[in-house]
Amino acid sequence: MTQQNHDVPDTETYDAAASSLAGQVDNSVMAELLSIRSSIDNIDATLVYLLAERFKATQKVGFLKAAHRLPAGDPGRESAQIARLRRLAEDAHLDPAFAEKFLNFIIGEVIRHHEAIAEDHQAAAEWK
Amino acid sequence: MTQQNHDVPDTETYDAAASSLAGQVDNSVMAELLSIRSSIDNIDATLVYLLAERFKATQKVGFLKAAHRLPAGDPGRESAQIARLRRLAEDAHLDPAFAEKFLNFIIGEVIRHHEAIAEDHQAAAEWK
Repeated sequence: MTQQNHDVPDTETYDAAASSLAGQVDNSVMAELLSIRSSIDNIDATLVYLLAERFKATQKVGFLKAAHRLPAGDPGRESAQIARLRRLAEDAHLDPAFAEKFLNFIIGEVIRHHEAIAEDHQAAAEWK
Repeated sequence: MTQQNHDVPDTETYDAAASSLAGQVDNSVMAELLSIRSSIDNIDATLVYLLAERFKATQKVGFLKAAHRLPAGDPGRESAQIARLRRLAEDAHLDPAFAEKFLNFIIGEVIRHHEAIAEDHQAAAEWK
């Protein structure tokens, strides 16, 4: 990059060929690596947008729970979700243990959001 | 469920209405909760299949790295990925810090896979 150019969107600064391996591997190997990484980059963008959509949905759940003073977690729901995702993972040839770890990672974040929403709701109710 | 029925596929045993809140909330609130959860379930199935596809791609990278004795991790690539995902997360109104945590979670798993592939490859080479 030369100097800062405000006309160029931020995403254009991404170097899809960034690698600590540059210059250490054959050009043909690097070309194959970059081709696979380009698919991974597309999948990652999809994952980010999908996760954003998932948090929009769980935010609605959070508001609903806060409005009706329901607990942030729901162990009955969570164990049904985990069992289902493990089965789906098997179908997709994904390690079911990883799918479970992944869901627990997401649920942990969701519960933190729910608790924050409940606190805000509580604070707003007390202020009224 | 009455008795075990082997004709019924496993996925049919999933109870989309499973909840520890059952009986504790108004029917209308529960109906709204289940409606949002049904969208979350669809998103989760998509996430599982997308993650499976991502691991297929990183497995190819793992084989390529093992065949050419390249290191499992690539810090230059990882920092470019993280910066890009943070920007995408902002676009999608997803917490960039969460997007980064998510990518690190996935990369941790990928590196474990790459190391396992490299060990298998090494063992196979020594056995020849």
